[in-house]
Amino acid sequence: MDREYGVNHGEDVVDGRDIENDQLMDCKESETYSQPLLSKRVNTTSQIAIVGANVCPIESLDYEIVENELFKQDWRSRKKVQIFQYVIMKWAFALLIGLLTGLVGIFSNIAVENLSGFKLLLTADLMTQHKYVKAFAVFAGCNIGLAAAAAALCAFIAPAAAGSGIPEVKAYLNGVDAYSILAPGTLFVKIFGSVLGVSAGFVVGKEGPMVHTGACIASLLGQGGSRKYHLTCRWLRYFKNDRDRRDLITCGAAAGVAAAFRAPVGGVLFALEEAASWWRSALLWRTFFTTAVVAIVLRSFTQLCATGNCGLFGEGGLIMYDVSSAMVIYSGADILVVLLLGTIGGILGSLYNYLVDKVLRIYSIINERGAVFKILLVITIALLTSCCAYGLPWFANCIPCPADASVRCPNTDDSGNYKSFQCPAGYYNDLASLFLNTNDDAIRNLLGTSTTREFHISTLFVFFAVVYLLGIVTYGIAIPSGLFIPVILAGACYGRLVGRLFEPISKLDTGLFALLGAASFLGGTMRMTVSLCVILLELTNDLLLLPLVMLVLLISKTVADNFNKGVYDQIVKLKGFPYMEAHAEPYMRQLVALDVVPGPLVTFSGVEKVGNVLLTLRTTGHNGFPVIDEPPFSEAPELCGLVLRSHLLVLLKGKAFSRNRVLAGEEILHRFAAFDFAKAGSGKGIKLEDLDIDDEEMEMYIDLHPITNTSPYTVVETMSLAKAAILFRQLGLRHMCVVPKSQGRPPIVGILTRHDFMPEHVLGLYPLVKPHK
Amino acid sequence: MDREYGVNHGEDVVDGRDIENDQLMDCKESETYSQPLLSKRVNTTSQIAIVGANVCPIESLDYEIVENELFKQDWRSRKKVQIFQYVIMKWAFALLIGLLTGLVGIFSNIAVENLSGFKLLLTADLMTQHKYVKAFAVFAGCNIGLAAAAAALCAFIAPAAAGSGIPEVKAYLNGVDAYSILAPGTLFVKIFGSVLGVSAGFVVGKEGPMVHTGACIASLLGQGGSRKYHLTCRWLRYFKNDRDRRDLITCGAAAGVAAAFRAPVGGVLFALEEAASWWRSALLWRTFFTTAVVAIVLRSFTQLCATGNCGLFGEGGLIMYDVSSAMVIYSGADILVVLLLGTIGGILGSLYNYLVDKVLRIYSIINERGAVFKILLVITIALLTSCCAYGLPWFANCIPCPADASVRCPNTDDSGNYKSFQCPAGYYNDLASLFLNTNDDAIRNLLGTSTTREFHISTLFVFFAVVYLLGIVTYGIAIPSGLFIPVILAGACYGRLVGRLFEPISKLDTGLFALLGAASFLGGTMRMTVSLCVILLELTNDLLLLPLVMLVLLISKTVADNFNKGVYDQIVKLKGFPYMEAHAEPYMRQLVALDVVPGPLVTFSGVEKVGNVLLTLRTTGHNGFPVIDEPPFSEAPELCGLVLRSHLLVLLKGKAFSRNRVLAGEEILHRFAAFDFAKAGSGKGIKLEDLDIDDEEMEMYIDLHPITNTSPYTVVETMSLAKAAILFRQLGLRHMCVVPKSQGRPPIVGILTRHDFMPEHVLGLYPLVKPHK
Repeated sequence: MDREYGVNHGEDVVDGRDIENDQLMDCKESETYSQPLLSKRVNTTSQIAIVGANVCPIESLDYEIVENELFKQDWRSRKKVQIFQYVIMKWAFALLIGLLTGLVGIFSNIAVENLSGFKLLLTADLMTQHKYVKAFAVFAGCNIGLAAAAAALCAFIAPAAAGSGIPEVKAYLNGVDAYSILAPGTLFVKIFGSVLGVSAGFVVGKEGPMVHTGACIASLLGQGGSRKYHLTCRWLRYFKNDRDRRDLITCGAAAGVAAAFRAPVGGVLFALEEAASWWRSALLWRTFFTTAVVAIVLRSFTQLCATGNCGLFGEGGLIMYDVSSAMVIYSGADILVVLLLGTIGGILGSLYNYLVDKVLRIYSIINERGAVFKILLVITIALLTSCCAYGLPWFANCIPCPADASVRCPNTDDSGNYKSFQCPAGYYNDLASLFLNTNDDAIRNLLGTSTTREFHISTLFVFFAVVYLLGIVTYGIAIPSGLFIPVILAGACYGRLVGRLFEPISKLDTGLFALLGAASFLGGTMRMTVSLCVILLELTNDLLLLPLVMLVLLISKTVADNFNKGVYDQIVKLKGFPYMEAHAEPYMRQLVALDVVPGPLVTFSGVEKVGNVLLTLRTTGHNGFPVIDEPPFSEAPELCGLVLRSHLLVLLKGKAFSRNRVLAGEEILHRFAAFDFAKAGSGKGIKLEDLDIDDEEMEMYIDLHPITNTSPYTVVETMSLAKAAILFRQLGLRHMCVVPKSQGRPPIVGILTRHDFMPEHVLGLYPLVKPHK
Repeated sequence: MDREYGVNHGEDVVDGRDIENDQLMDCKESETYSQPLLSKRVNTTSQIAIVGANVCPIESLDYEIVENELFKQDWRSRKKVQIFQYVIMKWAFALLIGLLTGLVGIFSNIAVENLSGFKLLLTADLMTQHKYVKAFAVFAGCNIGLAAAAAALCAFIAPAAAGSGIPEVKAYLNGVDAYSILAPGTLFVKIFGSVLGVSAGFVVGKEGPMVHTGACIASLLGQGGSRKYHLTCRWLRYFKNDRDRRDLITCGAAAGVAAAFRAPVGGVLFALEEAASWWRSALLWRTFFTTAVVAIVLRSFTQLCATGNCGLFGEGGLIMYDVSSAMVIYSGADILVVLLLGTIGGILGSLYNYLVDKVLRIYSIINERGAVFKILLVITIALLTSCCAYGLPWFANCIPCPADASVRCPNTDDSGNYKSFQCPAGYYNDLASLFLNTNDDAIRNLLGTSTTREFHISTLFVFFAVVYLLGIVTYGIAIPSGLFIPVILAGACYGRLVGRLFEPISKLDTGLFALLGAASFLGGTMRMTVSLCVILLELTNDLLLLPLVMLVLLISKTVADNFNKGVYDQIVKLKGFPYMEAHAEPYMRQLVALDVVPGPLVTFSGVEKVGNVLLTLRTTGHNGFPVIDEPPFSEAPELCGLVLRSHLLVLLKGKAFSRNRVLAGEEILHRFAAFDFAKAGSGKGIKLEDLDIDDEEMEMYIDLHPITNTSPYTVVETMSLAKAAILFRQLGLRHMCVVPKSQGRPPIVGILTRHDFMPEHVLGLYPLVKPHK
């Protein structure tokens, strides 16, 4: 069994980036959810090599500080001014991330409101002229056109931009870098694709994409400038490592949520609870600053737009559902209804996750066939959505306008309540008020307080069923699509429905029931708690609801956790990311580190022949190699440390060779600085093919001591696997050295990587351990 | 130098608990702030032994899972039902902690309102009869009586209950257990002492003590029942380890904040940002549940009390300052004023911390002299406070009542605005409205909106100066005293002052300025960000203020961080707790693990002579011993693992001896269960004196294998000290084994404990490393 695994072992996950470049082109084509196959295959052992060839490269990130001679030299010579520069840049970046994410948030809101407002106005206009068929043609045509544009962007430019993006950001912050997930192209498509997709009337939100956008912006800032455009400077170089980039991206994710929901505290908590795998107090502080900047940007622009400078943007662009006008009074009966809501939310939520998972697996087969199929799928769903939105309101009865309506009724505008649709003057179509609106406006209508009888019970039921199902079939098509809005929409709908049903015994406003419904469904799908609670409070501006929102979230999460995992965790798994959980699996206590150490180990001598190094780099995909000191450099063989592939490439490129097998550390320390080994932006590092080494040089020697991390984290081979996994996860390692327990053996037994701790892998090696104990 | 250190080395911090019991009596006497001396002495090397004799025992906690044979056997035989029991109990405890903390919160609020209300009514009554001298006598007499009672409780029953308690809880969650800090006596004194102290009119709050109370309640629940009262059961035994207790105490701390401020989300964030050192997503979820329970308990009781069943409690007992009636409109000029407020808050806050530190050092000398001195100090401060509160209002002018006052004016009640004091009908004394009220009511008056001109500028200035100084001299006396309320009081006062000064150019209500002032001063002293922000929002019920509150907190924290540390960190340091910071000090990169390995190492053989074990336990204070396997049990000496002192004592007490040097693991596994080795409640474990071993037994052997943790975390001796410190901190270790790099040496070089990573210690050993790089 070891032999079979040997193919890919000791390697960092599935990194083939350097080796085959053609492969990447294929990848771009089949990015969207082509990976469910991976997770399926990983379950059957011995096929990882096959998967490795099929799938897009996933790379582990180095969060450990590489303490080699160069680092120490750099650290010793570091001046106060450099530390000052670093701190300044850290905060400047936090500011920039907030600023840019806020601006993108504003832009996409204005764009969506104008695009879909224009579309809805056109349709409503034709409706008032009784040109119903033409109205449908215009409505569906606009939707399909916008959808096709979004799909084309996604399919041809950046397949990685499809979907929510939150699972990918989550995986990145856990230490897994998926190919081009934070590239500039992805950012571009994410912004414009999201605008087009939401305008096309899909049941998708722009909140997940905003989180991804924030992360992309942060990642671009952390690239350390661009040599091509001469945008390099010392100040930017401090962020050329995975550790600092991780912090930036955490800030970016927080800024995204803050921009999407205008919820700065909620953004920080989201980053903390859902996105980040490692957290420091200092980061809390920095993300908080970033989201504060976002809040200020949004506020300024909303004030600017309030004067009417933003086209159809109006006041309601940024979702903000103020329910504070409703009195929060509740009795014991209400609490019981709330408990019921929580339970329903948990069941519906876990069912939703289950169905999304199934649909994604089907879609991945379609999406894999190429860009045209992707676009066709998007158009099909767009047509389906248009038919539902335009067709179903015909079955609804016209309702007489209420005498005390605070807004115009009926209404033929692009947004608002009491849509006229086909109804005569003085009457409105309640189903059209939900369907022929943007999702944001539909939510606002559902959360509307003091409008208890505005929607018929049957209307609410139909709308809920349609939105629930459309939400499921829409996620996974090749457009940027957030999950928050569909879930809030469906949740608010059944919340209001329950509120209507229990109206006789309840004191609470139906609008508040709608809010609690949204909370319960969010809890049931996303399984977040504190962050959702705070986001909802910030959205609705009513702190008095806090105990009820907490209660409903607690129940729905508890109920749903009995059935399956949260939707983001499911997608992470489906995409085949080797995500390290914070806790070790119980069965890992039955194994020791040695049990999962992969096949033959490749090591280097402290002073190694250039030819050997080159050959090893060519023939293996490993990213870290142990360095062993042997006589005459030490009395007996001992572990000197670990070198990274990227560092070796820099040293080879710089041709720091010597004719004889001698220590040449001093010279290397003179010729190179720590910054030469900084991690380049994605796709920019030195590649093996860039090296030009002649035969004479192949016979020369290279001293690896200056670039060897002399403080790698080690575990003894008899360490329990559970404890080794905790060490690996808590310290954010990429490589972990396993050393022998008894003496008289080689000083290192093997290297463990993230892959070796994956439950599928461990259970594949040891099918007899009991996984559920 | 090593020799000097040898005295106390390899030992867990300063643990003399087992050795000298008389010492504990002394300790109780001199608990309150007797430790500033410690931190002073630690700075000069070679005096730790002396300190060890002077100071109360501090013990490290074991957060690591001890994976020995017994644990594995227990784990293998664990049934589903046991896991179910554990989960049920986890949530039941979370519920209980919330319930009990909520009830204590309600109780202490009702008690304080009634006690101080009675006192104030009595005084006001005498004032209206113009018996001014008698009024002062009654006022001061009540204050001194209450203060003396609080001090007596504190000095004679539980000295550990003095002060805020937050630093101690913080230290506990970092892995440092100070003597009797979570004992039942401490809980009792904390609750009643806090009620008496606050009623005595001191400038102290009940918020810090509430946090400590929550932690104590959680700790008591986690003791695993009581054998004395036959309250043991299998269900309770799961929590007899430091790891699960830590989680409970985190919940308790969160519940405390939630009960103090009626801020459930704020409570969770406080636990996360300030209290806890380790955090898991699962814990977020559980603390959230606890604080939700607290919120519900508080809500129910407030509704009950609203009907007038709680004496003088009225409506305003639980602090809740609703400012939502004020319009939040601000311009550029307001932002500038807010920036100014933030800066002032930062400067005043860091100055406050500096002065508190100085005062604590002086008080510690007084408090060390004995209980009588403690009580005298408390009475002195009580007299000073009474004189200020009763004397200063005489210098204030009587102000005519405003025509549009929404409440009665002037007012002779126990609480409220517009106090009459010496003024004639139709006039009120503004300084008396602040001084002759409970602190909660004073804050409410300061945050009052639409009452801009109620307080004279000079009044605000005088009140601020007095409260600022009284706050400084009050913290540190022998009563339970929170820091939140003094800081909010002083902050709100200068916030309102600034608001008055900038009234001509500002649009913001002075009440909102007061809130921002409180935020700035809190940020400047406590240095929290997100949690303070959320607590303030939950207190004031106004989300629209969020951007301004964030801004002011950011600035005040940034300014203050340039001068010194947060007040809780300062006190932790002052008390001499070996607190592990989340990051390693930069100079630790210049050292390796071997550099700080302490003196001679004591090891055991896998099968050791009973006499040797006993002698070692008697002559050293170490809590962990490496076990070395030697021939014939292994080919060459190798590290088997680590045994804990407490586990050895259980094995010795159980007399699991054999006549010959043979493996007896099977028998021990039969005779003992893992639960026998569970950590007993504080002060309840087996002591060395409890053992009764005769001379014959001394010559017998004991097999240590079954209780040896075979997976201790190890580092190689050449590992950089910084990385070793990160490993130690991130994994929450108590002992870390240092193993040799080269072969042919003994299999373990030494054991590092928390103490060995303390900056003072490392810099003491290596005075030449540059600490500031």
